[in-house]
Amino acid sequence: MNKKSNILILLIFLLSIEQITGQVNKDSELSKGLILTSEGITQIKKNLGTVPLFDNSLQDVKEEVDAEIKIGIQVPIPKDMAGGFTHERHKNNFFIAQKAGVLFQVLGDEKYSNFVKDMLMEYAKIYPKLPLHPEDRSYSRGKIFWQSLNDANWLVYMSQAYAGIYSWLSKEERDHLEQDLFRPFADFLSIENPQFFNRIHNHSTWGNAAVGMIGLVMNDEELVQRALYGLEEDNIKEGAKDDDGGFIKQPGQDAGFIANIDQAFSPTGYYTEGPYYQRYAMYPYMIFAEALQNKRPELNIFQYRDRVLIKAVDALLNLTDTDGEFFPINDAQKGMSYHSRELISAVDIAYHFGDKDPSLLSIAKKQNRVSLDDKGMSVALAIRNNEEKPFVKKSMELTDGQDGKKGGLAIIRSKNEADILTLVMKYPTQGDSHGHYDKLSFSLYNNGDEIIQDYGLARFVNIDQKNGGGYLKENTSWAKQTIAHNTIVQNENSHFNGNFEIGAKFHSEKHFLDFSRPEFQIISAKENNAYPGTNMHRTMAVIQSPVSEQPLVVDIFKLSFEKQNKYDLPYYYLGQIIEANFEYNSPEILEKLGANNGYQHLWKEGIGSNEKPNTKFTWLADNKFYTLTSITDKNDSLIFARLGATDPLFNL
Amino acid sequence: MNKKSNILILLIFLLSIEQITGQVNKDSELSKGLILTSEGITQIKKNLGTVPLFDNSLQDVKEEVDAEIKIGIQVPIPKDMAGGFTHERHKNNFFIAQKAGVLFQVLGDEKYSNFVKDMLMEYAKIYPKLPLHPEDRSYSRGKIFWQSLNDANWLVYMSQAYAGIYSWLSKEERDHLEQDLFRPFADFLSIENPQFFNRIHNHSTWGNAAVGMIGLVMNDEELVQRALYGLEEDNIKEGAKDDDGGFIKQPGQDAGFIANIDQAFSPTGYYTEGPYYQRYAMYPYMIFAEALQNKRPELNIFQYRDRVLIKAVDALLNLTDTDGEFFPINDAQKGMSYHSRELISAVDIAYHFGDKDPSLLSIAKKQNRVSLDDKGMSVALAIRNNEEKPFVKKSMELTDGQDGKKGGLAIIRSKNEADILTLVMKYPTQGDSHGHYDKLSFSLYNNGDEIIQDYGLARFVNIDQKNGGGYLKENTSWAKQTIAHNTIVQNENSHFNGNFEIGAKFHSEKHFLDFSRPEFQIISAKENNAYPGTNMHRTMAVIQSPVSEQPLVVDIFKLSFEKQNKYDLPYYYLGQIIEANFEYNSPEILEKLGANNGYQHLWKEGIGSNEKPNTKFTWLADNKFYTLTSITDKNDSLIFARLGATDPLFNL
Repeated sequence: MNKKSNILILLIFLLSIEQITGQVNKDSELSKGLILTSEGITQIKKNLGTVPLFDNSLQDVKEEVDAEIKIGIQVPIPKDMAGGFTHERHKNNFFIAQKAGVLFQVLGDEKYSNFVKDMLMEYAKIYPKLPLHPEDRSYSRGKIFWQSLNDANWLVYMSQAYAGIYSWLSKEERDHLEQDLFRPFADFLSIENPQFFNRIHNHSTWGNAAVGMIGLVMNDEELVQRALYGLEEDNIKEGAKDDDGGFIKQPGQDAGFIANIDQAFSPTGYYTEGPYYQRYAMYPYMIFAEALQNKRPELNIFQYRDRVLIKAVDALLNLTDTDGEFFPINDAQKGMSYHSRELISAVDIAYHFGDKDPSLLSIAKKQNRVSLDDKGMSVALAIRNNEEKPFVKKSMELTDGQDGKKGGLAIIRSKNEADILTLVMKYPTQGDSHGHYDKLSFSLYNNGDEIIQDYGLARFVNIDQKNGGGYLKENTSWAKQTIAHNTIVQNENSHFNGNFEIGAKFHSEKHFLDFSRPEFQIISAKENNAYPGTNMHRTMAVIQSPVSEQPLVVDIFKLSFEKQNKYDLPYYYLGQIIEANFEYNSPEILEKLGANNGYQHLWKEGIGSNEKPNTKFTWLADNKFYTLTSITDKNDSLIFARLGATDPLFNL
Repeated sequence: MNKKSNILILLIFLLSIEQITGQVNKDSELSKGLILTSEGITQIKKNLGTVPLFDNSLQDVKEEVDAEIKIGIQVPIPKDMAGGFTHERHKNNFFIAQKAGVLFQVLGDEKYSNFVKDMLMEYAKIYPKLPLHPEDRSYSRGKIFWQSLNDANWLVYMSQAYAGIYSWLSKEERDHLEQDLFRPFADFLSIENPQFFNRIHNHSTWGNAAVGMIGLVMNDEELVQRALYGLEEDNIKEGAKDDDGGFIKQPGQDAGFIANIDQAFSPTGYYTEGPYYQRYAMYPYMIFAEALQNKRPELNIFQYRDRVLIKAVDALLNLTDTDGEFFPINDAQKGMSYHSRELISAVDIAYHFGDKDPSLLSIAKKQNRVSLDDKGMSVALAIRNNEEKPFVKKSMELTDGQDGKKGGLAIIRSKNEADILTLVMKYPTQGDSHGHYDKLSFSLYNNGDEIIQDYGLARFVNIDQKNGGGYLKENTSWAKQTIAHNTIVQNENSHFNGNFEIGAKFHSEKHFLDFSRPEFQIISAKENNAYPGTNMHRTMAVIQSPVSEQPLVVDIFKLSFEKQNKYDLPYYYLGQIIEANFEYNSPEILEKLGANNGYQHLWKEGIGSNEKPNTKFTWLADNKFYTLTSITDKNDSLIFARLGATDPLFNL
């Protein structure tokens, strides 16, 4: 008897929870999904099994999540740097939880909602007592990860996971999660870390999106406003810097998501840090914008600033070689491409919430994967219906600066039979803390092959053994220095003396450009501040001439200076040396090229000079020959150098 | 009137030639095609348009030849080395002529037969007065090319071109071509160059095939016999050597095509020079064998020596990584694969004239191209009919030596989920003049990626600026030396003191092997002659252990010696250094590792030692980590070295 009545009581109790739930969440509110909307779910269920790209993406995700469910949930106490166990586990958790949330909404199988709930409950259990992460390398330490940035990543994904099971949870469960986990988590990322939250920087964009997205799910207007417009009070001193040496606060700087849209992009959609970080930042920009479009349509966020977010996706797709890999401008890991996770959702969002640009479909087709939501179905359906058009990358200028008047980046593309030669010339602002001292530098590609290369960054992302996956000191001593780039170095000093504060004050200036004739495309730009008293002026043209089957690149570097200086102009050819038309020595021992500013990282493999007025140097790359012909004086030194000196840990 | 009668006379004259032609070439003789037979042509014509692989191959060849016909025939006076204009032009000529001959037979369009005829007539015009090629670098200079070897290539292909239009030409035309071009050409390659023709070597195989094939077309039995059994008299001294340092004549050596089949292959089909040269030699072996099968079926050449030619194709396909690239054993250019021209015809021939092995079809399908003849149609038809089976590469031993008792090569393959780890261990004979001093060396692959690499050769094939495309002196000073390989070096001397005569006398010995259990595969071999008084014994195993997700490679090198020596054991890891568990210095200047025997080409980038008994060294290759764990003594030196010293022309 006793047993029976207990059960009866329990049932009644459960029923009452459901009633309460039904009262609190008005239908109208619940139907507005964060990312997956109820219309989207209807559309997906209707078309499932008939749209190959969507079906395959769903199948892949299902297999991935099912495998993780089998392994079971692990929420270890945070300890490791990037690449280490706890870091990778927590990172995997938020990716998988977001996917499981999607699967629950699409397939309705409670094994997915239970998985998300159980994982969130584990986090809610440890979070209230979690101290700062034990590694103290960051200017803004996280709790789950070594830096708040990764914690923000966690919340951007977990907000989606939570949204996916929100109405399936009981009010009590939600209250528990929100009080013990989400609200303190959001406050930690914002109020407790204003130096992280209130910047114009990709870090803050992640922070803003994290706080805003959980705010939208929780219907917590205070968090949403904080995300959109920043903290009113932050008590950060102007001129404060982060551990990468970047400014945290500068005069006239606003904060919040809207301010980041305003100030981090030029009107062309160029992101001042460069394409590598633009790729990384595009996810929070686009996914939070999508959530806002669904939940706060009155903001009309995708139309904001003349559609700058949509333009940014287009700019990013154009900042790639023919394999879709991003040009390694500023701090940039080579090999990242528009096949990356962030670009898949960015392309789908730009298609769905933009003008349904059919050329985006051809990129989505190459990505061969879509997001599992309204936008992904929209793209997959259009591809099924053969609506795609080619995405043709043309020569273009991407201006820099909020007003588009702070220099920029020129991309010249020259098509010749099967090959596309691409010249990238750089004359923008410093590029914030991830900028390099490489005014008027260039790089050259033939299709997807680097011919004259840019080094990119010195960092092994996610490899724990290499400084916890963080930036290596060689990033400062080598990768950022001027000598590491294809541009002029004066007296073995880097531009702006390698001083970020000075560099950040200036930008190069476009002199002129003309891309109107495919057979003669030209860009000319000036830099007058990198070396006080010296004016640098570089003009580069790509010419399709009848005298040569292949296009010719012309490079005219004009310098005016007040006193005699030493100038170095490196060309980082990639390939095998075939021939040189000058004599050079071949040293018995290798010495360093210099002592500082990156020179200490180069071995001097040969020095020569040329009596002839034209110095010719030929190398072989991917079965093609390239010749650099330079006007030289017999007093000029011609140096063969190789990277690798002063590198005790073999980081370069 | 005068005009008319002239014409009349001319017509009669033409008719009589055709009558004579008809008389000389009995139908029975003509129907026996050299490569394309009349049955083959019938079969092709019947199936054309319904066999995609054949049709596509035909279309590609047609486009290629049509483009060349438009450009017109050029037969320049020979002058250049490989990579230079005249070399490349003549090389292209024979490839295109062979293809044009095929197109004429298949399509019947006289523009192709005219093209072949006109080209051959141009050659017949210059050949009688052609001196030796002006470059005098070869032990056997050619006339069209700098070496007879390339002239032999010319004749192997031109024989086929000639066969294709043979019965379409008038007897007078044929007589002219044979008297002024083909017969003198064949005599030049044989009687006038016995040192080239009468060897056991890939050069001679080309020479034999060239002379034999033109002999078969011309019905010149003397040439056929000469090709099959060599010159009776050659007046070559025993011990004579070629310009690569290889023996021209050794005791007990026979000559001719049959002798080369007898003596260059082991019973397993392993070719003593290694897979790179086997690939190169397979074309004349297989194409002449095919011609013999068609014209001298009584020889039953494909059954000869227990089907050794068919086995050789199988061996060669097994000597590849998972991308189909040949292991760079001995002198070998990396990147050559079973997609090469020579392997396309070899696979088609092995299928058609062998046992119709359906696993060969899967290789042909990957090659995505077939020969345009009987065998190619046979393969394409079988693929169309879905008859192919996977070609599964297993662990195997390929013995060396005519009797299969002179050591060999072991290939251990270990499959683990998506990855195939492949260990290649080498214990064969010296490998003729292209052999390296690398007894008991090994290399390691993960799928198509080199993990522990073999350097291969020092040569830029067909790149004129690099020693005319020939072997570089660094091939001797570096690539062949022991230190360039993953094996033991004693006292900084190469095996056999780097002396070819001594090395050629010996071979390593298999101790035992067991590939019967996939989870534990082992090979053990000994070398007792490389260093007199020292016995080397290496045992390598690939183990799939439950303690590790990935297979483990165990390497036990046992040495017994009479006196104290210095030993070096290099591991040429390929990738980025991640971590080492020992201290090492990081030099301010780089010095060479040594003075001779290859050591002069290495820069010493760090030296250390380890107090711990296990030295661990981790590197990253293609996103995978590899760790080398060695038992070391605190007195052992651990050296980081990098190739590139003593390399004034940047050849390495």
